[in-house]
Amino acid sequence: MFAPVYLDHNATTPLDPRVLEGMLPYLREQYGNASSRHEYGRAARRAIDEARQRVAYAVGAHPTEVVFTSGGSEANNLFVKGAAACLKPGVVAISAIEHPCVREPAKQLRRAGWTLREIAVDENCRVASANFQAVLEEKPALVSVMLANNETGVVQDIAALAAQAKPTRAWFHTDAVQAFGRRPVDFRALSGAGVHALTLSAHKLGGPKGAGALVVDKRVELQPLIAGGGHERGLRSGTENVAAIVGFGLAAELAVARLDQNGRGLAVLRAELEAGLVAQGATIFGARAERLPNTSYFACPGIDGETLVGKLDRAGFAVAAGAACSSANPEPSHVLLAMGIPSSLARGAVRVSLGPDSSAAQVGDFLAALNTTILQLRGLTALTS
Amino acid sequence: MFAPVYLDHNATTPLDPRVLEGMLPYLREQYGNASSRHEYGRAARRAIDEARQRVAYAVGAHPTEVVFTSGGSEANNLFVKGAAACLKPGVVAISAIEHPCVREPAKQLRRAGWTLREIAVDENCRVASANFQAVLEEKPALVSVMLANNETGVVQDIAALAAQAKPTRAWFHTDAVQAFGRRPVDFRALSGAGVHALTLSAHKLGGPKGAGALVVDKRVELQPLIAGGGHERGLRSGTENVAAIVGFGLAAELAVARLDQNGRGLAVLRAELEAGLVAQGATIFGARAERLPNTSYFACPGIDGETLVGKLDRAGFAVAAGAACSSANPEPSHVLLAMGIPSSLARGAVRVSLGPDSSAAQVGDFLAALNTTILQLRGLTALTS
Repeated sequence: MFAPVYLDHNATTPLDPRVLEGMLPYLREQYGNASSRHEYGRAARRAIDEARQRVAYAVGAHPTEVVFTSGGSEANNLFVKGAAACLKPGVVAISAIEHPCVREPAKQLRRAGWTLREIAVDENCRVASANFQAVLEEKPALVSVMLANNETGVVQDIAALAAQAKPTRAWFHTDAVQAFGRRPVDFRALSGAGVHALTLSAHKLGGPKGAGALVVDKRVELQPLIAGGGHERGLRSGTENVAAIVGFGLAAELAVARLDQNGRGLAVLRAELEAGLVAQGATIFGARAERLPNTSYFACPGIDGETLVGKLDRAGFAVAAGAACSSANPEPSHVLLAMGIPSSLARGAVRVSLGPDSSAAQVGDFLAALNTTILQLRGLTALTS
Repeated sequence: MFAPVYLDHNATTPLDPRVLEGMLPYLREQYGNASSRHEYGRAARRAIDEARQRVAYAVGAHPTEVVFTSGGSEANNLFVKGAAACLKPGVVAISAIEHPCVREPAKQLRRAGWTLREIAVDENCRVASANFQAVLEEKPALVSVMLANNETGVVQDIAALAAQAKPTRAWFHTDAVQAFGRRPVDFRALSGAGVHALTLSAHKLGGPKGAGALVVDKRVELQPLIAGGGHERGLRSGTENVAAIVGFGLAAELAVARLDQNGRGLAVLRAELEAGLVAQGATIFGARAERLPNTSYFACPGIDGETLVGKLDRAGFAVAAGAACSSANPEPSHVLLAMGIPSSLARGAVRVSLGPDSSAAQVGDFLAALNTTILQLRGLTALTS
């Protein structure tokens, strides 16, 4: 297989071989249904219990607060739609930069009589306290602001925002899918500040696709999205994906263990990358805000992002134009538009997201390939215009 | 590991080693997000497209009719809640023997103003035409009757029921989770008779946990349960579980290929099993109806099912008491109660479900162990009563 340099870790990550090793017994001899009352079933149940403890420990939660789902999108939908179904229709407030899997369920609530309010962000992709206060005046019953944005990597001060929202008594949720494994996430501390639920996903941190979780304060009443046999304390029915849950637990543990060292290494690598990008005339989005250490989101004026990503792919570098999850959408990124970036520049957006195995050599090669590609594209533009 | 003889294939099945082999590349070097526009993403997308073709071909559907989900429970919820959300509240009709993942979402619809009607079954676990007609008089907008019951294995004549329901113009759904891979399932033929959707699950036929599908006629309007990035034609968002979907495709193909030969072998094996059970005084539930060839559901008068399953587990045989999926529930099976079986006998229910690797020796050993266990339990009862 042709194996380009992978610089798209915010889309998904390679499965850590140690995680796969831990999953394999549950794809081979330990195939029981965790609800079965025999040895195969009990072995599966024990594995899930252990994984639940690992995930809970990794985010400072109690194991009984962890509701396993099929992934982050399901967990975000479970919070938004599940909590709304137990409340009288009111105001749901989400930041203008949420992932579609928060935005779309929030939009769906309008059919049930809810009012959707978006919380504006500034040019650095940050929710400003004043913008948030304006929305809080409308007394939302549900609030969702993501911990770190998937495109820019910009981090919000969720504890401060939750504290600000506390007087409204809204349920406060944060999508921590991109943050988890890339910076410390402490549900107990966030909970103290007024956060009631957060979303996690395994495949963004070296775990498998097919597992995620809603970590949720037990005071939050939720109607299950998937009702049935009563799995996950009645909040998520369906035969548990034992191997994926086991992998999630192991990946969470490994990600937290490498967090400090890895974060420092990535920050150095990203600084090199961005020095090179700026030298090539790129604008770095959200550069003045606190960001995840692995993410660079940039545009080179006059260069189309999709075209650039295609050329870089052929040159052997896998990067993203806008968010992979909405790649069928030809519109410029709603995140960049919310930041007030002009459409013309937003259409040039390219995201590089590093992983634990990314190296200085890869970054150097990438910058060289980018330089060549941009010169080619500028040459073509000069010829045709 | 202590490895009891596994006779619980209706709860879940071992992952076929050939299926795991096909999945492994997607758990190793082919780790892309199928929405990514680079080589890793395209490889994942191709694998999903191929799996969709395999699943579609296995059930006689068009690939564009296959909506991949995280499993059967999600697919059943997607049909019941997703279709209801696009209709004015009316009557939802389900058989009295549906799996909880159809029953519970149907109950949830009542909060949105729907009326739930259950279709009675006879003592053989079959929906009788007259019972169904009585419910059809109420002009249901949604109907769901399972193809084969997970506990008894009894098969319904879905084509006839769908034809009977046609004048009501209801959307007709069938849960084919237990049937698929154990008898032919032909969506095109069912569709001609008036079936609009059917549910499949990978882990009941040698595939992995974490993959299922709703096969659905495009005329059925559905609101997604999991909204977001617009995956699966907007009907199911979330990063695709590529490895599990690939495994589902392979398992579907293998299951259909072995259907004929395997079905005949299982029927012979089951006949031996049931002759032995009857000789020990057991009642076989649903024995006079057409059943899946692998399923025996029985009770020995005066013997508690849970106790028997526990003793058999210690003797090295993994079987089920009632449905594994609701094993937290101490009530006797709702399926048996719907069949008019007295509670006292229903509490004795034990399910043996054979798989492609089950052997005559295993069945013989199981009957011997059952005999010993029953004699022990009868002895204890005699001593303490």
